[in-house]
Amino acid sequence: MQLQECINFLLTSAQHTVSQYLNQKLLPYDITPSQYGVLHCLWINNGTCIPKQIAKMLYLETPTISGILDRMQKKELIDRVINTENRREILVIITEKGKALEEPIKKIINEVNDEVMKNFTKEESDFIRKSLLQIAEKELLQK
Amino acid sequence: MQLQECINFLLTSAQHTVSQYLNQKLLPYDITPSQYGVLHCLWINNGTCIPKQIAKMLYLETPTISGILDRMQKKELIDRVINTENRREILVIITEKGKALEEPIKKIINEVNDEVMKNFTKEESDFIRKSLLQIAEKELLQK
Repeated sequence: MQLQECINFLLTSAQHTVSQYLNQKLLPYDITPSQYGVLHCLWINNGTCIPKQIAKMLYLETPTISGILDRMQKKELIDRVINTENRREILVIITEKGKALEEPIKKIINEVNDEVMKNFTKEESDFIRKSLLQIAEKELLQK
Repeated sequence: MQLQECINFLLTSAQHTVSQYLNQKLLPYDITPSQYGVLHCLWINNGTCIPKQIAKMLYLETPTISGILDRMQKKELIDRVINTENRREILVIITEKGKALEEPIKKIINEVNDEVMKNFTKEESDFIRKSLLQIAEKELLQK
């Protein structure tokens, strides 16, 4: 098998190209693609999530999410508070600064998607997205 | 746009799932997917490459490659020598240890590819690979 046929190599290379581009576009807002992922979870959940819910939506492990949340809290994009209804639970809540980013960031995400997918037809790009989601959701790791 | 329609999110998530699986499979050989990439370049080039050539094949920047090569040299998978025909050039050469990995690692790469792509038809999986390569090779960054 050639390197250019290896699915891990292809995914890594395509991801590298696109995330570098997205990073460049997000630079003026001082946020990274993973931080956008967390903000998105909060935007669609009325500004409040538990870390486990964010981890699940982003297909990441909870310790990875904790690191991202630490940096976002330092930047005052989110806050973490104790859930008064269940004091063993931490709630992640969006700040005004995090809320204000919704409109400009969504615009950038749309532009990046249009640019990356512009040479594919609607059917092709739907198929690529569906296939990537299927791969992302595969349970491959051996316990 | 939903997060699950964002091409950067989809690529990152699919890449994460597949590379975690490949990492697990490569663990007994103490090499990472990027180190496999470098070994592959050497295997198909009679065991010798210049760093720039490796960077180009892997769609990575030369400083990133330098870091990977440092770790591979410590593990005695490669060596770096001065090109006697052009003393300003460094050659990366494969060691016996690096050569011996070709057969077992190629077997793992084939198994991982078969497992990840098993629910796609030959046509679908060819299309996915071709599309990912097109995305990887896009020149998106603004200078």
